[in-house]
Amino acid sequence: MPSSYELYYWPSIQGRGEFVRLALEEGGARYVDVARGKVGTAAMMKMLKGSKRQAPLFAPPFLKHGSLVIAQTANVLAYLGPRLKLVPADEGLRAHALEIQLTLADLVAEAHDTHHPIGVDLYYEDQTAEAKKRAAEFVAKRIPKFLGWLEARLAHNGGRHLIGGRVSYVDLSAFQVVAGLTYAFPNGMAAVKRRIPKLLALHDGVAARPRIAAYLASDRRIPFNEDGIFRHYPELDPKNHRPSAHD
Amino acid sequence: MPSSYELYYWPSIQGRGEFVRLALEEGGARYVDVARGKVGTAAMMKMLKGSKRQAPLFAPPFLKHGSLVIAQTANVLAYLGPRLKLVPADEGLRAHALEIQLTLADLVAEAHDTHHPIGVDLYYEDQTAEAKKRAAEFVAKRIPKFLGWLEARLAHNGGRHLIGGRVSYVDLSAFQVVAGLTYAFPNGMAAVKRRIPKLLALHDGVAARPRIAAYLASDRRIPFNEDGIFRHYPELDPKNHRPSAHD
Repeated sequence: MPSSYELYYWPSIQGRGEFVRLALEEGGARYVDVARGKVGTAAMMKMLKGSKRQAPLFAPPFLKHGSLVIAQTANVLAYLGPRLKLVPADEGLRAHALEIQLTLADLVAEAHDTHHPIGVDLYYEDQTAEAKKRAAEFVAKRIPKFLGWLEARLAHNGGRHLIGGRVSYVDLSAFQVVAGLTYAFPNGMAAVKRRIPKLLALHDGVAARPRIAAYLASDRRIPFNEDGIFRHYPELDPKNHRPSAHD
Repeated sequence: MPSSYELYYWPSIQGRGEFVRLALEEGGARYVDVARGKVGTAAMMKMLKGSKRQAPLFAPPFLKHGSLVIAQTANVLAYLGPRLKLVPADEGLRAHALEIQLTLADLVAEAHDTHHPIGVDLYYEDQTAEAKKRAAEFVAKRIPKFLGWLEARLAHNGGRHLIGGRVSYVDLSAFQVVAGLTYAFPNGMAAVKRRIPKLLALHDGVAARPRIAAYLASDRRIPFNEDGIFRHYPELDPKNHRPSAHD
């Protein structure tokens, strides 16, 4: 297998591709973020359809490594983890890493649905009323549940890393989730933050790692924006969050 | 490692646990569906909280094998696959298996959200209006996209199996998804079915496998019901489905 990777993802957003970008950066991998180059999204769109040799793909991000093309963020990370030394060798720990990554993926999907509760193919403006309700539920119930669980997992593993004794792709992803939720819901996160000190320390520790810090300061890091998954819509993040019922 | 598995999941629904049950049954595994036994959900609830030895878990289903406890359905299947001979040995094919399984998981999450578009912690009766809109979108856009992609993957792999040359855990999961969607949306699925002949044949082939047929005929198979993920609410599956906008 060649040591160079090709990442295919939307060139104007962090989105789900960002979890892969962070792993490639921290792992010091040689990689091309294909759609951000001159070719744009043309190659990506073609590969989504598949060919005689390559199976059709459901959605970006996907990774090309040699002749292998694989999609689904957590799957890509499980594949890259051993190659980039971003997951321990132990099979049980690898299963725990994927378990946490998949739970982060569930959280990311729910974060997406705060602005698209009715349909991903509809405009946000056509579902704003429903989005307000879902965002209120998400902030009141789901963020505390997900981040509280991450805090407990961190505590169970000694407090500094989610898996094993050093940084893994799961820590990088947890950083991204905290950063994204803080961008999207600054008011909503304010109430949660005092209950997740270990997770915030992990976030800061990842951001300060030399390769990640260099990446975040570079133009390779796309700023958060309202086309991505973590979107800041003030109407979805009022100063006084209230769940819509049952509280 | 002992050859006996313990599955922990809600005892009254198929839900996400069903994907694990199908793999254990087809693999001829010795297993205990713990919460369906005399102990009920007590042990499961205790394990969710974790202990000095065992990390806290986010949600069922989870699997105990020896001292290892792992959650997240697709993660459990990726772990069981090699042990139950339900995935090929090739690393690339295993990555493709997990890729498809994770896409099925996305479809399952969206199927769930048709009846809970605003919040999982709220009653269906409190979000029926939004559920009608989301279900219309799901049936009009998402089911055809997901199942059309599965049909294309099947065609790309020769038409009979999603991965490799024989049955894998992914085929079992595809069976379950087709069965669940057909239960929940008989009207919605009617329009899609003529476009997915290979997927329907795979569904029928899995159902006819001796171990699966015996399982489906046994009382180990919990009937579909309106507490699970695939729920049949007539108001979400009208005779003439219409998307809510943009068509």
